[in-house]
Order: sequence, then C-alpha cells, then structure tokens
Amino acid sequence: MSQNIYQTTYNKYKQSIDDCISALVKNSEPKSLYDPVNYILSGGGKRIRPLMVMLCCQISGGDSDAAINAGAAIEVLHNFTLVHDDIMDNALTRRGNETIHKKWNVNTAILAGDNLIAIAYKSLLKTESANIKKIVEVFTEGVIEVCEGQSYDKDFEERENVSSEEYLLMIRKKTAKLLETSAVMGALIGNADDRSIGELRNFALDLGMAFQIQDDMLDIIADEKELGKKIGGDLIEGKKTFLLLNAFEHTTDPTETELLKSIVNEKGIHKNEDETINKIRSIYEKNGIIENAKKEIENYTNDARQRLEYFKDSEAKKMLFWFSEMLLNRLH
Amino acid sequence: MSQNIYQTTYNKYKQSIDDCISALVKNSEPKSLYDPVNYILSGGGKRIRPLMVMLCCQISGGDSDAAINAGAAIEVLHNFTLVHDDIMDNALTRRGNETIHKKWNVNTAILAGDNLIAIAYKSLLKTESANIKKIVEVFTEGVIEVCEGQSYDKDFEERENVSSEEYLLMIRKKTAKLLETSAVMGALIGNADDRSIGELRNFALDLGMAFQIQDDMLDIIADEKELGKKIGGDLIEGKKTFLLLNAFEHTTDPTETELLKSIVNEKGIHKNEDETINKIRSIYEKNGIIENAKKEIENYTNDARQRLEYFKDSEAKKMLFWFSEMLLNRLH
Repeated sequence: MSQNIYQTTYNKYKQSIDDCISALVKNSEPKSLYDPVNYILSGGGKRIRPLMVMLCCQISGGDSDAAINAGAAIEVLHNFTLVHDDIMDNALTRRGNETIHKKWNVNTAILAGDNLIAIAYKSLLKTESANIKKIVEVFTEGVIEVCEGQSYDKDFEERENVSSEEYLLMIRKKTAKLLETSAVMGALIGNADDRSIGELRNFALDLGMAFQIQDDMLDIIADEKELGKKIGGDLIEGKKTFLLLNAFEHTTDPTETELLKSIVNEKGIHKNEDETINKIRSIYEKNGIIENAKKEIENYTNDARQRLEYFKDSEAKKMLFWFSEMLLNRLH
Repeated sequence: MSQNIYQTTYNKYKQSIDDCISALVKNSEPKSLYDPVNYILSGGGKRIRPLMVMLCCQISGGDSDAAINAGAAIEVLHNFTLVHDDIMDNALTRRGNETIHKKWNVNTAILAGDNLIAIAYKSLLKTESANIKKIVEVFTEGVIEVCEGQSYDKDFEERENVSSEEYLLMIRKKTAKLLETSAVMGALIGNADDRSIGELRNFALDLGMAFQIQDDMLDIIADEKELGKKIGGDLIEGKKTFLLLNAFEHTTDPTETELLKSIVNEKGIHKNEDETINKIRSIYEKNGIIENAKKEIENYTNDARQRLEYFKDSEAKKMLFWFSEMLLNRLH
C-alpha cells in the first residue's frame, strides 16, 4: 500500500469510531450532565487508542469492526482522564476549546468525568467475545493504573527530587498503559494466543513510552509552527519532563544546576521566558540530554517494532507499522 | 428466629463484607492515592447494599458468600459517590470524620473517587457466575443512573420550582437505584428466574424510595438525640426535600408560601434557625405534609413487602423482612 492508502484506511477507521462514539449518548437526560459529555466526546482527537484496538484485533485474525465498541470504550475512558486531569491542572483549554470546568464549573466536570467512565464500560460490554470477562478485567486494570499514574504525576509536582527511573514508571502508568490496554483488548477480541497477546502488549507499551518521551523532547526542539504550541511550554509550567530530570542527573556545572533547580523551585519560568528557555536548551545540548532522549525514544521504538516481527505479513501489520510512524511524527 | 438472631446474622454478614473490603487495596502504591481510599473504605457504614446483594442471592437459592465480591463492589461504588458528592456539596465531615477533600485536597478526592469506581469493578469481576456479563451490565447501568441522579440533584439546587414528581425521579436514580442494582445482582448470582429478579428489583427500589422519604421526614420530626444530628438540618441548608416540595403544592396561605419561598430563595435559614424551623413544622402539620410523607412511605413500604410474598418462606426471606424494618428505623 502506498502512503496515501494508509492514510485513507486510517481516516475510514477513525470515521467509524467517531460515529460509534457519537451514537453512545444521543438524546440523554439531564442536559446538565450530557451536554458536557457530548461536548468533550465530539471535540476531536486522533482516536489513537481505538485504532490500536481495531488493528490489534485485525492482526490477530479478527474483524476490525468486532473491536469497535471496545475501541470507543477506551477513547471515552481517555476522555474521562482529560476532563479530570484538566480540573487538577487548572487547564483552561483542551484541543483549542474551553475545558469543561471552565465552560461550566468544577462540579459539572467531576460528574461528567464520572459518567464517562460508566459510558465507557457500557460501550465495552457491547463487545461480543467469548473473552468478555477477561477484556473487562484488562480494561479495569487500565483504569486503576491510569489513576495511579496521575497520582504519581501530581506527587512529582510537589517533590524536589524525582529520578528519571521514577518518571518512566509514572508515564508507563499514565500514558503507555491505556495504549497497552488497547492492544491487549484488541488481541483478545481477535482471539489471539498468549504469545501474540504478549507481543502486542509490549509493542503498544513501548510505543507509548517512545511517544511520551518524544512529546517531552518536542517541547524543546520542535518547530513552533509544526508543534502548534509554544516551544518550551513545559519549562514555563515547571513540568518535570524526562529531559529536565535527565539533565539533573548529568549536569555537573553548579551554575547550570542552579538554573535547573530554579525551574523546579519556582514551579516554572515567570520572567525572561525566551532567554531562560534558550539557556536551558544550551544546557541540554552541552550535556547530551537531547541525545539521551533521542536514544531512549529509539530504544523503545526499536523494541516496539521488533515485537511486530513475530507476526506474518498482512495489511494489519503494515498498518500498525505506519501507525507507529505516524504516532512518532515521522511521516514528513 | 428471634430479634436477636437477626441482628447476629446481620453482624456476621457485615463482618465478612468489612473483611472483604479491607483486603481490596492492601499495601497498594502510591500512598497519596491509597491512603484516602483506605480512609473512606474503613470509615464505617451500615453496609446496607452488600447485605441486599447477599440476601437476594440467598433468597434466590444461592450461597450468600458467592455474592460477597459483588457486595463489596457496590459498597465501594457507594463510597465513590460519597467522596465526589462531598466535594460538590462542600461537606466538611462524613460519618464523623473529615471528608477527603478537607483532610487532603480536592484533587486527591477526585482521584480517590475515580479509583474507587475501578476498584469496585475489580471486586465485581471476582464474582464467579455464568451471568457475569449481565451482572457487570446491571452494575454499569447503576453507575450511570447515580451520576444522572446527582446531576438532577445539583440542578434542583439552582432551580426555583421543582415538582415532587421530579423529586421522586431524582431520588429514584440517586438513592434507590443502587439498592435496586444490589438486589438484581444478588438475584443474578443466585441464578434467579426472571420473575424473581423482577420482584426483588422492585422490592429494593420501593424500599429505597421509602428510605429516602423517611430520611427527609426524620429531619423535621425525629428526636434530636436519636437522629444523631440537628433537627431541621435540611431546612437550614435549604435542601429541597420531599416535604418542602410537597408543602409548596399544598399551601394556600400567602404568608406560609412566602416563608417556604424564603427557604428556597435564600438557600437555607441564616438567622433565627430554631424559630423558623418551628414555623415550618407548623406549616407542615397544618397542611398535612407530614401525613402525606408518612402515606408515601407507607405506600412504598407496602409495595416493597408485597414483592417478597412471591417467595416461599426461608431464613433469607425473614432476614429481608427484618432488614427492611431496620432500614426504616422501625426496630424500637
């Protein structure tokens, strides 16, 4: 298939997911609950996780359509995490729209998020599979780990010292886990054997890790236009990214360490933003931090790819390769 | 069985539920998430819903122990509603302890509540039953309706006019639904036939309605010592209870209507509390509001009891009768 055909397939799958999601809560009452629910669910998004469910079902020999309700479920669950995380982060916008707690209020956002969890389960339970109990178990483990990941993330905001090891555990739970859950659910719906489930699980997990570290890296090296947001935004907010934590572990110059510490202690950059961001970028470059991040991303990416080698060639396998390239912004 | 034996049986069931719940999240990390989770789960409670699950399993011919994980699940879910409702209501204490958002903070309470939902599903999925998919569906429908009920409740706080019909729909979802869910899950675990499931469903639903209206009534007519909280507390907070809404529909004297309206418009009583509460009580007495509430409670209670007639005599049936008496505070 040419590049173009992959994109077309992706668009087709995405459309069927969007349709499935928008049918979930049609005409439900009370409006005070379902207006915000519909608002977040129709607010766009790349539908990465549902795609993972569908393609992993397909590569396991199942029909991708059999995985669509589970795909919608994981996307609705993902949206729950966005709504509640945005409250906790005091975020004002999400995908260019006002966040629910800003547009309505915090109580509405709490309740909409709660309801999204249940709507996700409801969609999941429409899945017809002999493995349904196992699928719901895997999904539930995903919800628990996402809560744990978010809890670590909030802890780390308050802590002065966080190791990059701890950071990797956090993003494994907060970001990579739902991608892993997606893959395992898809494999189970496709009746994959244990070995295949394991390969797809690790493919998705490693892809998720690569994705998050790349997200951290792009914050400092991307082209502002292409990124679609301000370069250095994570530094301005004082976020302890993989790069910042790795810099702490590799910087020996006291002046440099001092500057890094100020980001943490002052919870971000509050004046001379661009100048400070440039200084940090220089520290990163001088100490090989960006190289370290690139190497980490490459390791995870290679590990992920190797997992797919286990599977015989198929359209689904090619799509999963293309999909991982797309996720890692390598399709230029 | 004598009165005493029922109480002993209840205590035994309650203990096994408490043990099951406290085993759910032992030694889990991070502490920032599991400390508040353990705090709320070990904070007491009558474990009414798990008892309903176990007894409805038993009356259907199953072993009450087979329903214990589902019982723990519904109790954990109930605790999720308490944690998030307390945030929304700015409540400072719950069962005599500080609320989670007060003792920790709002973010912690949001996240602990979210995790409780997933922990509930995890416990539920331990249930061994051929009906497991149906059981998880019923549970999920319960979560959705509880969110809808809470949403109506918050809406009603902001609205000037709420009919007692609307109020009954709200408490059906917010209070009675989880009791209904408990009964249906228990019946399904006990492999009850459709008719039995229907009878137990309506028994629990009607009992839940009677319970909530009685709760509203006790706020104004109970003995303060026996109630364990201040008489008229709902009026002081401006809560639109069944009695207040019913009074609006039956009061014709403009002075009386004015006083009732002031409770709604001023969102409670802010001065001369006892004097105002006494005036309202007089309005209730004069217009037959307390009698109306009593009649409503009696109707629901009778309907509930009649549902049990369908079942042949058994220990479980006797326990369910006793249990409904206990719930309605009639064991004096």
